Amino acid sequence: MSGNEPLASPPVTFSKRRALTQDLAISYLMQQGVENPQVISLAAGLVDPLTLPVTETAEAAQRILANPTSALGSLQYGTTSGYIRLRRLILDHFATLEKSSPEQLGIGPDRVLLTTGSQQLLSLVCEVLLDPGDICFVAGPTYFVFAGNLSGVGARAVTIPSDEHGMDIDELDRAFAELNQSGELSRVKMIYVVSYYDNPGGTCLSESRRRQLIEVAKKWSRDHQIFILEDAAYRELRYDGPELPSIWGADESRERVIYTQTFSKTFSPGVRVGFGIVPSSLVQAIIDRKGNEDFGSSNFAQHLIADVLQHGTYGSHLEAVKTGYTAKRDAMLAAAEEFFSELPGVSWHHPHGGLYVWMSLPKEIATGFNSELFRAALKQGVMYVPGEICYAASSESIPSHQMRLSYGVQTCEGIRLGMQRLSVAVHEVMRIGDFIRRT
Amino acid sequence: MSGNEPLASPPVTFSKRRALTQDLAISYLMQQGVENPQVISLAAGLVDPLTLPVTETAEAAQRILANPTSALGSLQYGTTSGYIRLRRLILDHFATLEKSSPEQLGIGPDRVLLTTGSQQLLSLVCEVLLDPGDICFVAGPTYFVFAGNLSGVGARAVTIPSDEHGMDIDELDRAFAELNQSGELSRVKMIYVVSYYDNPGGTCLSESRRRQLIEVAKKWSRDHQIFILEDAAYRELRYDGPELPSIWGADESRERVIYTQTFSKTFSPGVRVGFGIVPSSLVQAIIDRKGNEDFGSSNFAQHLIADVLQHGTYGSHLEAVKTGYTAKRDAMLAAAEEFFSELPGVSWHHPHGGLYVWMSLPKEIATGFNSELFRAALKQGVMYVPGEICYAASSESIPSHQMRLSYGVQTCEGIRLGMQRLSVAVHEVMRIGDFIRRT
Repeated sequence: MSGNEPLASPPVTFSKRRALTQDLAISYLMQQGVENPQVISLAAGLVDPLTLPVTETAEAAQRILANPTSALGSLQYGTTSGYIRLRRLILDHFATLEKSSPEQLGIGPDRVLLTTGSQQLLSLVCEVLLDPGDICFVAGPTYFVFAGNLSGVGARAVTIPSDEHGMDIDELDRAFAELNQSGELSRVKMIYVVSYYDNPGGTCLSESRRRQLIEVAKKWSRDHQIFILEDAAYRELRYDGPELPSIWGADESRERVIYTQTFSKTFSPGVRVGFGIVPSSLVQAIIDRKGNEDFGSSNFAQHLIADVLQHGTYGSHLEAVKTGYTAKRDAMLAAAEEFFSELPGVSWHHPHGGLYVWMSLPKEIATGFNSELFRAALKQGVMYVPGEICYAASSESIPSHQMRLSYGVQTCEGIRLGMQRLSVAVHEVMRIGDFIRRT
Repeated sequence: MSGNEPLASPPVTFSKRRALTQDLAISYLMQQGVENPQVISLAAGLVDPLTLPVTETAEAAQRILANPTSALGSLQYGTTSGYIRLRRLILDHFATLEKSSPEQLGIGPDRVLLTTGSQQLLSLVCEVLLDPGDICFVAGPTYFVFAGNLSGVGARAVTIPSDEHGMDIDELDRAFAELNQSGELSRVKMIYVVSYYDNPGGTCLSESRRRQLIEVAKKWSRDHQIFILEDAAYRELRYDGPELPSIWGADESRERVIYTQTFSKTFSPGVRVGFGIVPSSLVQAIIDRKGNEDFGSSNFAQHLIADVLQHGTYGSHLEAVKTGYTAKRDAMLAAAEEFFSELPGVSWHHPHGGLYVWMSLPKEIATGFNSELFRAALKQGVMYVPGEICYAASSESIPSHQMRLSYGVQTCEGIRLGMQRLSVAVHEVMRIGDFIRRT
């Protein structure tokens, strides 16, 4: 063969959509991690490798493949909506989380859809609901990957301020009123909320705000349904604090809330099974779209999750996972206290669950990829997620002095060392700041 | 709770895209199968349950989970492009199929992308390349699910006639010339070809036409690259006849052909791993889009396929699979000979591989879902895929007298019985036809 002839190749005309799909900021972080292997990453959202369910998965695989029916079932094509036994088990499990029963919930397994992680459910919902220019409300800060889904379909993310109790629903109501005034209410399709131990903020939407959110969505659903997309990815990673009911549970109509959860954080991200509990009006649209995309996710992976749910292995594994993360959360909060409490203007949330501590520095200390601090931290051997990437691009003024610190991957010792290194970097930059101001 | 209030729910305003996504005809067939369990399905594209790799998968799972590195690797998040070891193994495997070496192919594993079945690769390619109104050439008949992908992004499928050697490339060249005349050449983005044992036709694109196809794509890539999407899903299910090189191999630039293949037909559809070998110009676009959709397919499933490729289990299993399908192909051809050879105007292809026999009845015998024949066949206890759903909707005159008959799922006895039943139904309808014509 004559080798490549790339210079002779005519240009590619991509779809308009391709231009909307941005390289995720996370790729930059992952590249930094690869290029600086000695760095302690407080950035990665990976789960603790020590808690990965090796024995549990091996036993589940053996059980599935030892039984002729489940063996052949798991290796054959499944359906687009997913393995029906797992959908029933998930409905039972969800009812338990809601301190209810499937009967009381008033829905059947036809409302449960299985996806490749909950990420695919988020993506599918955007595909079937959002046209270019449509609006989705998000909290500020919010899960930055979802902002990519919104821009990927050309939709606008409109940021609603949030505090330690999550999204400010009064502000949301005001934002609706403004869009109604400006004649854009018809473009609002959805409100996206990470309802438990938010990524990145670590906060939970308070119970009263959950009910208030349903009322606001109902109030403004004048001519068309405005959906709430409830991302409960971290729900089961609860270490202390109250057990909150879902937003979904507060919607008696069962038609307003799209609920998503995943087994990635509580069991294994590599198995890659997530699910949605979706309004009846959206079931067929989401299945049709998923049918076009992939016919259905890995059937074998769905059988693995069904097995561990049925045999109680999931529950016992989750307890072990939570014990490990509780210690790590405590290690990070203790290190924050030890190394940051005397720094003026530094504060952080105390999460009751999830994988993240959200830290604010004095306003003048920028934390972005191009900041002095990010470079100083890398030099010290530590990495974090700059807070500014957790705000939708449309935010009027994006705070640039915050950091998302993850305690998922590192050991307790690694967490303490990472926090110490980070504090050294912050000290350094504060001194530089002082110096510059003084000269 | 107060129960449902669906009547009070305001209407849903779906995205424009949702309206483009049709319910797949396959859903209707699957429903018919469920509602008529006694029916012998010659319609289902499922693989033979007897050939599913139960022992092979159990052993692979054990090996992966017994080794700490692969155990933790398989259960943790993977990358969007897929498990690098599997991508290297696939490149080696592909080189073997091409009777070449990875070095001679002149590409690295960065050009290999892993997806949830090859279906997801087909979908991703449509997403990044096609805008509403753009054109993709397809054969008539063609893989009907892909027609759904095209309409799902609002693209137009333009049908090129095909014969026993696959798509007629002279006709393709003429279609290009016509679109050039009408000023629409800029809308043509792609040519879709199932290059081995076509679904539904069972045909292979001949070697001379493969080279001719590259030349035609090159000739009309005047202002922008016109890609060939080579769907090689059935390539390794070869029972006899020549071993053809891929279209990809005939493109020395390595920039014109998007090649896809899957482990669904040769190993297990339930594990759900497919791959693409893509031009360098498309790698990032496809990864970005897949990142938005799901971050990456099941990492555990990718480790399973890597294990069976590496340990040679895949190769030995494939031989057993082919032996089984060869007998079934022979059983169907023998039954066709036995029950259809004396029927006037009935003909069929003799496939050298794949899972399908394509049968044509006399032109006046309609085979569609609403036809006499489809109902008569169901009554006799047999089901097939109507040929008309295998033509893109844009085809000027869609033949309505053909059938796709699959020998994948049934036993040899089941195939013979199904073909016998089908011949009874055809006899019946022919007699009715005669009767109507005579009155």
